[in-house]
Amino acid sequence: MSFERTADSRQGAASGFFRSRWVEAPSGVDELQPTALAPGFRAAGVAAGLKASGGTDVGLVACDAAEVSSALLLTRNAAAAAPVRVCRDRCDAGGLRAAVVNSGNANAATGEQGYRDAVAMQERAAGALGLEPAAVAVAETGTIGVPLRMEPLLEGIDRAAVALDAGGGEAFSVAIMTTDRGPKRCCVRAGGVTLSAQAKGAGMIEPGFATMLCFVQTDAIVTEPDSALRAAVGPSFERITVDGQMSTNDAVLLQASGGSGEHLPQGLLEAVLLQLALEVVADGEGATRSGRIEARGAASAEEAEAAARAIANSPLVKTALFGHDPNWGRIAQAAGMALAGEDLAELGPEWIDAEELGADVAEAEISVELGRGEHSAHVYFSDLGHGYVEVNSEYTT
Amino acid sequence: MSFERTADSRQGAASGFFRSRWVEAPSGVDELQPTALAPGFRAAGVAAGLKASGGTDVGLVACDAAEVSSALLLTRNAAAAAPVRVCRDRCDAGGLRAAVVNSGNANAATGEQGYRDAVAMQERAAGALGLEPAAVAVAETGTIGVPLRMEPLLEGIDRAAVALDAGGGEAFSVAIMTTDRGPKRCCVRAGGVTLSAQAKGAGMIEPGFATMLCFVQTDAIVTEPDSALRAAVGPSFERITVDGQMSTNDAVLLQASGGSGEHLPQGLLEAVLLQLALEVVADGEGATRSGRIEARGAASAEEAEAAARAIANSPLVKTALFGHDPNWGRIAQAAGMALAGEDLAELGPEWIDAEELGADVAEAEISVELGRGEHSAHVYFSDLGHGYVEVNSEYTT
Repeated sequence: MSFERTADSRQGAASGFFRSRWVEAPSGVDELQPTALAPGFRAAGVAAGLKASGGTDVGLVACDAAEVSSALLLTRNAAAAAPVRVCRDRCDAGGLRAAVVNSGNANAATGEQGYRDAVAMQERAAGALGLEPAAVAVAETGTIGVPLRMEPLLEGIDRAAVALDAGGGEAFSVAIMTTDRGPKRCCVRAGGVTLSAQAKGAGMIEPGFATMLCFVQTDAIVTEPDSALRAAVGPSFERITVDGQMSTNDAVLLQASGGSGEHLPQGLLEAVLLQLALEVVADGEGATRSGRIEARGAASAEEAEAAARAIANSPLVKTALFGHDPNWGRIAQAAGMALAGEDLAELGPEWIDAEELGADVAEAEISVELGRGEHSAHVYFSDLGHGYVEVNSEYTT
Repeated sequence: MSFERTADSRQGAASGFFRSRWVEAPSGVDELQPTALAPGFRAAGVAAGLKASGGTDVGLVACDAAEVSSALLLTRNAAAAAPVRVCRDRCDAGGLRAAVVNSGNANAATGEQGYRDAVAMQERAAGALGLEPAAVAVAETGTIGVPLRMEPLLEGIDRAAVALDAGGGEAFSVAIMTTDRGPKRCCVRAGGVTLSAQAKGAGMIEPGFATMLCFVQTDAIVTEPDSALRAAVGPSFERITVDGQMSTNDAVLLQASGGSGEHLPQGLLEAVLLQLALEVVADGEGATRSGRIEARGAASAEEAEAAARAIANSPLVKTALFGHDPNWGRIAQAAGMALAGEDLAELGPEWIDAEELGADVAEAEISVELGRGEHSAHVYFSDLGHGYVEVNSEYTT
């Protein structure tokens, strides 16, 4: 199998897939057609009528190799949606051959019926693919608190199974979208392996939950998929915030077929997930700019992270990013809130670099030196503008 | 000394000072002219030129009685402003005869010079009033990170000392305002004692920090002012959130002269501070509605409070309040975030009362039953609308 190079493949830091200033792609990476899938994987996306728009809303991705190596990370939200609970209870996380997704209904806060419905999705997909149910992950996103319409959904799963194709990455990446401004996907090749990924997410949204979902396929050998995925999610999806809200449905799935006979090059998975995570931030509801806050000089790793998260989630800092206002005082205040009870009295402008809040850059870098120790942490975040209020304040009922 | 009854004194739950549905005034409370001061107190407000608008910006309040009983509660923000540090270091919190306030400059993040300036304010006011510096509290609010212009400020303090008057409550309550839509104040009488109070605050604001300040005067005997004040602040100012941001300058001062020979009636201070706190919420930046979230059935008091605060600070819940959207799913999601790692899978609509989010009420009551135990907690909050973005995204530089 071979892939075409895309017309816009990487020319420099600002073009191609790895376009964020905050992502360093490993050397020797080729970008393939972004809708391509890693060899040995097939995908599909069909319209089952769950979305009022009539858009595609059921996706399926599957690995041909029986000896798949996989890992699945799920939200820690206590009000986890039915598909998350089904994945926890009934999946073989290390041996997931396939994932079935719907993007019309989050199947969250739907009680025991919702759980049974998610199980039915898993079983229907497994049956259509000739797999054990435990080899099929279930992911859902969309409206909350509304029962699934199972008949069209199950029929859509059947059609998706028939439509599975090595060229189905395009359809799959579109079928998992909710309010995303566009699909988020890539296919890259380095060190003899190919890695493809599709993500969706734009913050928590109307009328219930939007969610971050991410699917990664590779023909590399990944012997410890869970630790590999955790190591890549830590500095990417776990470092972003749109509105500080943890979804009920978040999931990241890594599937590795091993078909290439090669191991994953160092840094490749991390770079891909970070770029996708930054696209989720940039696609934050109503977002116009992204920021990266680094808190340095903290007394502990926890303190550094608490300060960075408090700053990234401060509506005052987020509106300053929206308004191009280099307001360092808001950074001092948010850091001071995170460290309540400590002493940051000397946190003046000489310790805070907020200049890029006011600069004409789409990705603004800010930092604060806490002067208390050697630890640092960073978080990526989106701005807060009128678009956020518009998206989130409309009537649902 | 006697006070006129105001024309709009309390007719019912919705009129007069105690107009929130969430405040129950003790029986037998008379509302006096809201700008009046408790007997034995004098106040003033003058324009010193710190505010660009030319409005009054220096306030002074003082107790005539030498044997004052007082308590002062200050922000726990680690980046505490100079006046907060001066109060901590150099005030006799139990014997505060007077407070000097400026509303043009927060004197926050101003380093050692800021500290010296706050000390100079304290000493100037003490000198003008013939008091020990330790008997004078200093409070400041306004721009952050900008040195105080001391010459006009100190001259203003002198003029305020000369202007001190029993009828000065009006001028004082106006002089402490920053972006407040209007002054927040009252004077009430019950059980033979009079209690007056003035507050300011509208969330954290442009161009730096806005702050909650509150001053309370009474001729009651208060033998344990610190515990009395803590007991009243706990269910009022510590239960409100506009944008989840803890200010660098927050302060609440209680001064009791004992001149009436009577003790404070049960619940009076609590009711006054709660009504003032709710006015700060209602005056939140760009706010159009207030909410009260009660989280019930938590496994511990900490869990109940964490859930209530997560819901009250969720931008999704706040935009739903703005948009009159009875979106119970967002309440489930926020509660689930607060209890990450626990199991709230069954948190469906039967456990969440979000109806009033969609109702035509200025003060909406919502609740969630977590089904995990016997603890509950509530928080008051404002909505998030376009006004907030407008107020907070304008250029400062």
